[in-house]
Amino acid sequence: MSTTDRFPLVTAIELPDDLRARVLEVQEKTGFVPNVFLKMGRRPDELRAFMAYHDALMLKENNLSKAEKEMIVVATSGANNCLYCVVAHGAILRIFARNPRVADQLATNYRKAEITPRQRAMLDFAMKVALSSAALDDADFEALHEHGFTDEDAWDIGAIAALFALSNRMANLTGQLPNEEFYLMGRVPREKK
Amino acid sequence: MSTTDRFPLVTAIELPDDLRARVLEVQEKTGFVPNVFLKMGRRPDELRAFMAYHDALMLKENNLSKAEKEMIVVATSGANNCLYCVVAHGAILRIFARNPRVADQLATNYRKAEITPRQRAMLDFAMKVALSSAALDDADFEALHEHGFTDEDAWDIGAIAALFALSNRMANLTGQLPNEEFYLMGRVPREKK
Amino acid sequence: MSTTDRFPLVTAIELPDDLRARVLEVQEKTGFVPNVFLKMGRRPDELRAFMAYHDALMLKENNLSKAEKEMIVVATSGANNCLYCVVAHGAILRIFARNPRVADQLATNYRKAEITPRQRAMLDFAMKVALSSAALDDADFEALHEHGFTDEDAWDIGAIAALFALSNRMANLTGQLPNEEFYLMGRVPREKK
Amino acid sequence: MSTTDRFPLVTAIELPDDLRARVLEVQEKTGFVPNVFLKMGRRPDELRAFMAYHDALMLKENNLSKAEKEMIVVATSGANNCLYCVVAHGAILRIFARNPRVADQLATNYRKAEITPRQRAMLDFAMKVALSSAALDDADFEALHEHGFTDEDAWDIGAIAALFALSNRMANLTGQLPNEEFYLMGRVPREKK
Amino acid sequence: MSTTDRFPLVTAIELPDDLRARVLEVQEKTGFVPNVFLKMGRRPDELRAFMAYHDALMLKENNLSKAEKEMIVVATSGANNCLYCVVAHGAILRIFARNPRVADQLATNYRKAEITPRQRAMLDFAMKVALSSAALDDADFEALHEHGFTDEDAWDIGAIAALFALSNRMANLTGQLPNEEFYLMGRVPREKK
Amino acid sequence: MSTTDRFPLVTAIELPDDLRARVLEVQEKTGFVPNVFLKMGRRPDELRAFMAYHDALMLKENNLSKAEKEMIVVATSGANNCLYCVVAHGAILRIFARNPRVADQLATNYRKAEITPRQRAMLDFAMKVALSSAALDDADFEALHEHGFTDEDAWDIGAIAALFALSNRMANLTGQLPNEEFYLMGRVPREKK
Repeated sequence: MSTTDRFPLVTAIELPDDLRARVLEVQEKTGFVPNVFLKMGRRPDELRAFMAYHDALMLKENNLSKAEKEMIVVATSGANNCLYCVVAHGAILRIFARNPRVADQLATNYRKAEITPRQRAMLDFAMKVALSSAALDDADFEALHEHGFTDEDAWDIGAIAALFALSNRMANLTGQLPNEEFYLMGRVPREKK
Repeated sequence: MSTTDRFPLVTAIELPDDLRARVLEVQEKTGFVPNVFLKMGRRPDELRAFMAYHDALMLKENNLSKAEKEMIVVATSGANNCLYCVVAHGAILRIFARNPRVADQLATNYRKAEITPRQRAMLDFAMKVALSSAALDDADFEALHEHGFTDEDAWDIGAIAALFALSNRMANLTGQLPNEEFYLMGRVPREKK
Repeated sequence: MSTTDRFPLVTAIELPDDLRARVLEVQEKTGFVPNVFLKMGRRPDELRAFMAYHDALMLKENNLSKAEKEMIVVATSGANNCLYCVVAHGAILRIFARNPRVADQLATNYRKAEITPRQRAMLDFAMKVALSSAALDDADFEALHEHGFTDEDAWDIGAIAALFALSNRMANLTGQLPNEEFYLMGRVPREKK
Repeated sequence: MSTTDRFPLVTAIELPDDLRARVLEVQEKTGFVPNVFLKMGRRPDELRAFMAYHDALMLKENNLSKAEKEMIVVATSGANNCLYCVVAHGAILRIFARNPRVADQLATNYRKAEITPRQRAMLDFAMKVALSSAALDDADFEALHEHGFTDEDAWDIGAIAALFALSNRMANLTGQLPNEEFYLMGRVPREKK
Repeated sequence: MSTTDRFPLVTAIELPDDLRARVLEVQEKTGFVPNVFLKMGRRPDELRAFMAYHDALMLKENNLSKAEKEMIVVATSGANNCLYCVVAHGAILRIFARNPRVADQLATNYRKAEITPRQRAMLDFAMKVALSSAALDDADFEALHEHGFTDEDAWDIGAIAALFALSNRMANLTGQLPNEEFYLMGRVPREKK
Repeated sequence: MSTTDRFPLVTAIELPDDLRARVLEVQEKTGFVPNVFLKMGRRPDELRAFMAYHDALMLKENNLSKAEKEMIVVATSGANNCLYCVVAHGAILRIFARNPRVADQLATNYRKAEITPRQRAMLDFAMKVALSSAALDDADFEALHEHGFTDEDAWDIGAIAALFALSNRMANLTGQLPNEEFYLMGRVPREKK
């Protein structure tokens, strides 16, 4: 049995009301239900907590643009070899950044990506949180400051890396696979209606 | 400036009502407020989401005893070199396991700890989720099954490791230090009242 | 100065006759000249040797299908964080495998890809050649034999991994970036003419 | 059979005279015989050589305080996941440093410990000797000099890390476990007699 | 069966004319046929491509002396644990450098070798290409510039490391062992004829 | 200043009587004084303890031949990139094993060396002690038992690896370089007298 079969996706109808409402809202907007809801939906309390954490970090207005937040997700998820997050958040990043290449670049090697020096510094910090947080030191904060980031920004950057340290592990553990739609999203110009 | 000074602890009074209530309840019970509340309390939405995730995994009745859940926390936090989690959850583990040695053992080398073969298998799985989740394979689940664990148990085990992958990184990032009380808790027999 | 600027692309016209002929043939067929020719073309002797090695392994008829050869390239290039090879050979793989998802899967985590157990064994071997060839042992060959591969197949598999160990390093060294066309190739059905 | 059973502890009475005398002296002083004597006592020549090396480094008067010497032992033993040395030398460190927290801090993450910048530099050097001595370079010595350490001090620091590279491996190999007494030593104020 | 038996050496007579001619030329000059020809000769197209690549890099006149080119081979092959390349190219290096010690030094730890600071910088760069090319950054090129190397020199240095990334993997894969003659070559002064 | 200059060699005459006597005895026998005595002689107590430990393990009659003991030294010193130990003990191994190739083989990749399966098992165990002793487990002892080794043999094997974990670090720390004589010893047949 492969890992992807151990924890079958639930259907929207099996979800508690609040989660089903959220899922339907997403479906309305994007045309499909991302598998994270249907995989994690097996555990409504855990899904709810994850969405709350996600919203607290990813929907918050701060010094990171929406695209920059997703850059952190894609680069650290690439380093953690998380297929779901690379493909699903790669799609979101392409749309927010209006750049069809940057997600593949960040997932493969963020040092070669079409990003600004400020974004490079942001990702250096995020990758250290993702991969060797115990070695974080003053110099890491100072490198952020040189690009105009504050300590609060450091928290925002690091917290996204930390949340996806969780999410990458859950997706790897549960065999959460990306919806087919994500692979192509943001790669071709949207057709005018 | 050291990392531990960048994000000062808030005081209970600065917390929103719901979090303050929780904090007071903990204080009532244990005699002090664990620093995780006062460090993360700077970001109430993140703290709330973290506590919700924590409760969903750690308070849930399942095939893992309270002590076993804390074993996962301590062993994986040791591997991630997270001082707060090793010391604070080490204290909780000593109390739940009624064993003053097992926390130090698990934090240092879980292969030498006074645990059962079933617990060893549980920790082998948890450590793989913590350290190399992308390499998880059928054989890892089967090794759990040999000790009577189900796939749902695997989720429970792995999810705790995943949550503390987040928590360890946040503590390392924010310079969250253990309260002095934790170092000694569970090491000496409680005095009869 | 960024690495990608240190060694500017040459133009086809600057190439020696034999290489220009090859480049024009490729352009004829695919509509553009892959940057590997224009980056490595700065060193015609090296490019010629690389193409000869490439053709000896990738164009040879053997027990590996064209798609399987490209799978090896994509999976090992992902492990080596080589942007050019992941994107360019990812495109070729999508076309050969007639599967728009498999390249992203292999580049991120080959253990979660839509491949057969035989292909999984092939990639286990290729990854060991790519990442820890000194530890290759009889057991690695035997694992291939269990899936019907011969020792000659092992050579074919390992040699592709070895060639792209070279190619990945050259692309990383010279700042060789994928042509924009590669990002989308093989992701959308070709329009009928 | 677990590793801890392969090489049973000897009893003091089985030891040669010189070692028995030393053991009795220790017992007199601390109230128990540390297991290192009874585990390594199986091989009197090896134990004698180890004690001689230990005394040459740890009892010598030099620019390192007794507590600082034990800091090196605890931090490097933590990095080597050696349960015996972390717990036994952690106890000694707590007593010498008159600090009930610093051993747990150093064993978990020396970058977060309550130590001086000079001690941090000392431990940076010791950890490099413990974990990647082949990469030692002039810059490592110069970093020590900046904190007033001489090259002779560097030898003292590095030699302790080197000796416990040996000791940690022997304890891991022979299943040498800490005496129960060590876990609590130095954590509670000594009662006045 | 050991790896070294899976792919028996061919004999010179089995080689295609061009390769046999080359082999005989080498034999004429050195008195024996290096096993790389007889192991890789099983695949004439691959051997031809490898020799072409080798000659393009190793025979080219540039800012690297013959000895320096071989230093790169020996140091990176040591890091890749490739027996054939360490012993065979170690022999060539001893002869070119007229130094019977430097090959053993570079294969074991290039930081302790009898080389110039310029050669040390060359090897720092080569080792990064060999071991972590994805992390190459401007600072690596600038470190070379400080010793008078140009970007073209960086290509030359890195390309040799990249070619032997291939060659080391092929030798490890095919069980290519050094000829007995190589072990001693260049260690004793040649007798006058 | 290079590391090799920080701690100059002492001369035999500066040594205490007992050590000078030993040094002279060695010189008598081999024709030169190995640098370990003159480097470590700066610290007579440490040198004495090291020699005592060395003799307890290396001169002891047990189930390991003299050559096998040196195999452990050479293979683990290669893994620790210790130039002195690889070259000096490589020389001793060549003499004991009457094989001019085996030292270079073991220092580079013990999996490709001309050794017996029993010796391969011995080195697998030794390398685990050298590189990841915390992960030692019953299976490692059982793998030795399959080749007729006892637990006491396991101690002997592991203790040598542990001692040279110390020695390799001291040589790397102090810049201890091999005497020129060692490079060639055991490579050419001794001339009859």
